[in-house]
Amino acid sequence: MESTVDVAVIGAGISGLVAARGLAEAGRSVLVLEARDRVGGRVLNHSLPNGTVTEAGAAFVGPTQDHILALAQELGVDTFPEYADGDNVYVSGGHALRYTGTLPPDLLILPDATIVHLRLNQMASHVPVDAPWAAPKAAEWDAISLHDWFRSTTFNPATENLFLSFLEPLIGAEPQDVSLLYFLWLMAGAGNETNPGTFDRSSGVRGGAQDSRFVGGSQLIPLRLAEKLGDRVVLNAPVRRVVQYDDHAVVSGEFGSVTAKRVIVAVPPQLAVAIDWDPVLPAAKSVLLRRMPMGALMKCAAVYPAPFWRADGLSGMGLLTAGPVRSMFDVSPPDGSAGILLAFVGGYRRRDWGDRPLPERRDAVLAAFAEAVGPRATQPSGYFEQDWTTERWSTGGPVAITGVGTISGYGQAIRTVTGRVHWAGTETSTYWAGYMDGAVRAGERASAEALAAL
Amino acid sequence: MESTVDVAVIGAGISGLVAARGLAEAGRSVLVLEARDRVGGRVLNHSLPNGTVTEAGAAFVGPTQDHILALAQELGVDTFPEYADGDNVYVSGGHALRYTGTLPPDLLILPDATIVHLRLNQMASHVPVDAPWAAPKAAEWDAISLHDWFRSTTFNPATENLFLSFLEPLIGAEPQDVSLLYFLWLMAGAGNETNPGTFDRSSGVRGGAQDSRFVGGSQLIPLRLAEKLGDRVVLNAPVRRVVQYDDHAVVSGEFGSVTAKRVIVAVPPQLAVAIDWDPVLPAAKSVLLRRMPMGALMKCAAVYPAPFWRADGLSGMGLLTAGPVRSMFDVSPPDGSAGILLAFVGGYRRRDWGDRPLPERRDAVLAAFAEAVGPRATQPSGYFEQDWTTERWSTGGPVAITGVGTISGYGQAIRTVTGRVHWAGTETSTYWAGYMDGAVRAGERASAEALAAL
Repeated sequence: MESTVDVAVIGAGISGLVAARGLAEAGRSVLVLEARDRVGGRVLNHSLPNGTVTEAGAAFVGPTQDHILALAQELGVDTFPEYADGDNVYVSGGHALRYTGTLPPDLLILPDATIVHLRLNQMASHVPVDAPWAAPKAAEWDAISLHDWFRSTTFNPATENLFLSFLEPLIGAEPQDVSLLYFLWLMAGAGNETNPGTFDRSSGVRGGAQDSRFVGGSQLIPLRLAEKLGDRVVLNAPVRRVVQYDDHAVVSGEFGSVTAKRVIVAVPPQLAVAIDWDPVLPAAKSVLLRRMPMGALMKCAAVYPAPFWRADGLSGMGLLTAGPVRSMFDVSPPDGSAGILLAFVGGYRRRDWGDRPLPERRDAVLAAFAEAVGPRATQPSGYFEQDWTTERWSTGGPVAITGVGTISGYGQAIRTVTGRVHWAGTETSTYWAGYMDGAVRAGERASAEALAAL
Repeated sequence: MESTVDVAVIGAGISGLVAARGLAEAGRSVLVLEARDRVGGRVLNHSLPNGTVTEAGAAFVGPTQDHILALAQELGVDTFPEYADGDNVYVSGGHALRYTGTLPPDLLILPDATIVHLRLNQMASHVPVDAPWAAPKAAEWDAISLHDWFRSTTFNPATENLFLSFLEPLIGAEPQDVSLLYFLWLMAGAGNETNPGTFDRSSGVRGGAQDSRFVGGSQLIPLRLAEKLGDRVVLNAPVRRVVQYDDHAVVSGEFGSVTAKRVIVAVPPQLAVAIDWDPVLPAAKSVLLRRMPMGALMKCAAVYPAPFWRADGLSGMGLLTAGPVRSMFDVSPPDGSAGILLAFVGGYRRRDWGDRPLPERRDAVLAAFAEAVGPRATQPSGYFEQDWTTERWSTGGPVAITGVGTISGYGQAIRTVTGRVHWAGTETSTYWAGYMDGAVRAGERASAEALAAL
């Protein structure tokens, strides 16, 4: 294959497809080069034997995620509320405690947790989503890990362990793996231009980032985008090399080569730097991207004939303080045609459980579910899981993380245009980085940048 | 090119070449695939117009670096002592102060510096070089950055700034970029099996890691190794893909493909993960390598007709507390045929100065030299520099760094054999990781591993 287009887009996740759509609608020629044999990136539907569709990757959507919601509406993909009736369950020390709201009423933790909750929100309100390095206390907040901060802020180490249940699905990593500033930036980004981000919106179900899901599964969105783009999307085309010349760039791989006026990169940072860049990326960009490894997060889900826990007055949402599963959700289809419990297994749990034989991990996950919603959970009709860390074209998930010193030292290069190359991907978003909404926002921005430069 | 060999080695730096030599000497067939058009990796000679040879990369060698010293001797490469007569210079607040020994006699810093020095050595003595994650306080020491530790240990922030002058040439990064445990591990590794590593050995000139240099330049070593290996070394052959099968592996790129029973990787972590691995690397290895970005270090050197500072009783070694240059050395050739002053520009100095126009950076470097050894330094007969961060096949230098949480969480995978693939490169050494000695040690180990497995 040899082509000449206005813009070559690397990566057919939501961000790349949105970028391509913007260009195509403006009458520009565009090709999207995708390494996988499918579109969607970290967004991937999973079909159950009975035809029910659920998600192996990004699934949830919520208020202030205006860009993905508008896109879904335009593409005719409906949302439905995540099931949140009844009680949540808090499993600690072998006991299951029912509760409602965000924080479980653990008296040993509650004083700490209240302060943590308050202070995180307070600090996050001082972090500009488009320039976290410019926060008044950026240097101070980026010089310590989130773990350091917990240690100096809380009295009971169990408080950090509880918050891990919230953090893990967000970053797939441990509190020591990220700087305080990084986490505050994520909190600040859990909102939009008129509604500042908060911890609750990032971690909550009703009214939060887990508020709703998409009917038919979130991958419908990239699938429909790709359908509209037609043969502008090329699958099985991993980009190996990008050469920039004075007035054009050549993007190539085993698939052939594409000559383009501008290039949009819409893949995770670790895959972007694995491309052979000629000339090499500017140091500022390269150093930053190389310091943005992905979190590590698995999704493990058990399927039941029905969401039996609902009859017991349980929401299916649970927080656990030990074992491989620290948080779980009811991700049953809207029509109740099956009951599905989802566990996140990330960070050190991914490290310690992810490489064991599947039956061993499945049994541990089901045992965790049983602790929360009762012994029927050990007898599912099906079980499936998705490990994003061993996905060749993701290298992890749900999002790239940055440790101590990275944002304050090198963060400014995140959206810098490098020659003819523009940077999309959810990691480059201001609001909702790491989410589908961030992917759409980044794709729209990159598309506008490229259009303006053509 | 299509070949079948016992072992394919990726990377013709010292580590890869040493590994290949071990295999060839044992009668095994081996091919070394090198991306560049030269051997040596981060070891690179630079020739001056008058024929004098100096180094743009790794240069120094010292006591306990037995493996590189033995190899050099065997290859007929002699050493000569780094010039260390006369006074060092400490430039702070616009004043140049002469001193001898390791620590400059700054009365505002000395109490702190003495404690820092003592405690670093003390703590390092508890870090096993082959398993830093197993140090008694590994979790505690890996949970904070070196910067955090300085902040909680010292009274005067200027102390950390002074130590930066020592750290920068070692890691090319800021104290917040590495965990305390990482740095202690580097200290512990500045020795050998009978002489425990110390801060002084890592940072000192006489008796330390900067004790001597190689006559003819350090690159003579990889050049002579490659000469002996002959057509077993293939240049301009970047490896793009490694596919592992049941009983062999195929290593390929634009150069063609090599079928091998075992593979040895001897490139920096960031380049190793950029290879397209099929199957993907085990999560434990991939997560670790992706969390090992390179430091950022430039070498900037000015050439004079003679080492004029020596007549003034100066060693040419200097520590500076501000500006782009924080440490400088006399790297004149042994015969005194020229005078050369070398500056390291790393970490935030690389970030802030590395991308400016060359004349601007050169003037700043020369001004720094002048502060230390007098105004004649502003009139060199030549100037050259090497920026390892923008080197496509290094991505930085002098060594890969690990931030908070990486060694304790993921370090154990560093030398794990992955299928038919063994791991060399200086970063995988126990002693002198990041140095030429570590490269030799790692190459020897990987070679022995592969031999045992053949």
